[in-house]
Amino acid sequence: MKIKLKNKYKLFGGSQEFYQHDSLVNNAPMTFAVYLPPQITDKKLPVLYWLSGLTCTEENFVIKAGAQRVAAELGLVIVTMDTSPRNLGIEGEDDSYDFGSGAGFYLNATEPKWSANYNMYDYITEELPQIIESNFNVSKQKSICGHSMGGHGALMIALRNPDKYQSVSAFSPIVAPSQTPWGQKALKGYLGDDKQAWKKYDSCELVKTAITKLPLFIDQGTDDEFLKEYLQLERLQKVCEQYNHPLTLRMQEGYDHSYYFIASFIEEHLRYHNDFLLF
Amino acid sequence: MKIKLKNKYKLFGGSQEFYQHDSLVNNAPMTFAVYLPPQITDKKLPVLYWLSGLTCTEENFVIKAGAQRVAAELGLVIVTMDTSPRNLGIEGEDDSYDFGSGAGFYLNATEPKWSANYNMYDYITEELPQIIESNFNVSKQKSICGHSMGGHGALMIALRNPDKYQSVSAFSPIVAPSQTPWGQKALKGYLGDDKQAWKKYDSCELVKTAITKLPLFIDQGTDDEFLKEYLQLERLQKVCEQYNHPLTLRMQEGYDHSYYFIASFIEEHLRYHNDFLLF
Repeated sequence: MKIKLKNKYKLFGGSQEFYQHDSLVNNAPMTFAVYLPPQITDKKLPVLYWLSGLTCTEENFVIKAGAQRVAAELGLVIVTMDTSPRNLGIEGEDDSYDFGSGAGFYLNATEPKWSANYNMYDYITEELPQIIESNFNVSKQKSICGHSMGGHGALMIALRNPDKYQSVSAFSPIVAPSQTPWGQKALKGYLGDDKQAWKKYDSCELVKTAITKLPLFIDQGTDDEFLKEYLQLERLQKVCEQYNHPLTLRMQEGYDHSYYFIASFIEEHLRYHNDFLLF
Repeated sequence: MKIKLKNKYKLFGGSQEFYQHDSLVNNAPMTFAVYLPPQITDKKLPVLYWLSGLTCTEENFVIKAGAQRVAAELGLVIVTMDTSPRNLGIEGEDDSYDFGSGAGFYLNATEPKWSANYNMYDYITEELPQIIESNFNVSKQKSICGHSMGGHGALMIALRNPDKYQSVSAFSPIVAPSQTPWGQKALKGYLGDDKQAWKKYDSCELVKTAITKLPLFIDQGTDDEFLKEYLQLERLQKVCEQYNHPLTLRMQEGYDHSYYFIASFIEEHLRYHNDFLLF
């Protein structure tokens, strides 16, 4: 598949690049960004996939997290992507911030209205890695990380594909979408009423059946305005204890749900992933 | 003067805060942001004033530069501010990106239409430091730094007040506003046709009369789309040579005019200022 360079900026000795391409799985144009550290000219590098939260595009993390400084030091490629296709003309796609545009929830929709275009699960796990691996000097070594809805995406995808990802981490993730408001709205809207179908996108459910127990590393702010109702991390903590699944959950005193929180701890996440990735 | 807290976020163990207040010198509400590193509870800290470029508010640098990580390590307070008053109802204030709102040019306007509200020189050198020093646990030690129009502001203000600032640095600055398009439009608009009055806001002119020769430290990208016509750094280089004024001008290969450039080198600027500031 052809990809089209939209913008490119020198950054920490490497290159921050923005692309557009026609996605086969989403039947729609999609955009992504890739940070190529200076070491990219020497050898094939591993890739960290970053999944953003509600409303975000590929740009938010690029601008706000300050991750490229550390990526340039470690020799890590970072890929970010839009959180859904956009401007498709689907009725209601722009009606709310937490469903439709900017809210793909990293799943494959089955409801007829969305199923042709909202296949972010296949996009993240299949199509985008193929594009990255065929267009840039990267290895097949990869890790995954995300925030909020993207934290849900990272945990859920890694739990289902422990063979594909060397490591996973998350900031302020949705961990029990079947049981919390953002997730319930999305799962019902994209998958319909059959709650059995929701389970494969619910990290708390996936922990119960995980055979390869990929460790989960999570940072969560104690002053996060969404913690109590929308995130409910204690649900993941409980199921990880019950099923003996390795979880490092760090409650970070006084931090909220914003990118200021992500910026404060992204370096530790990059170094965490770096320890799992082969160079 | 009373200042009103608008927002506050925990960041790198410190606090990123946004304020609004009524400015006496601008006869208008103004907004600024302050990063308070964790050390602020222990002792009075020095302050770095950051001056942004055209169109920016106090938020751009806060979000995009990644400076707070280093400020938290060094114990440096960072103050950023809006680049002009806004929404005053002055005819034409929002007509262009390079004059009026978001383009105060860090001068005191004398043209009647602007003179009551566009007094950013007094705001930066007098009013804002007084507000910062009376509301936060800071010392009188300060340095100044900026980008593009804000690079002009930082250099010009430091050259005129070498006793007030311990050090100065700039990214991609306008250095000869009397002789380059952005500057000419602004100086004419705010000060009128008398070019004698322009000189005190022109760094190249100020170098000629500087008695205390505060060293100038500048980073400039070689791929900056504005370098040749709008910035013309060779003019400053020449006058510094002629008048034996210390200048460190680093041409950074491949970098452009964006915040990606600033992010790549801001750490070195903070460490540079840190060496001049007493703690």
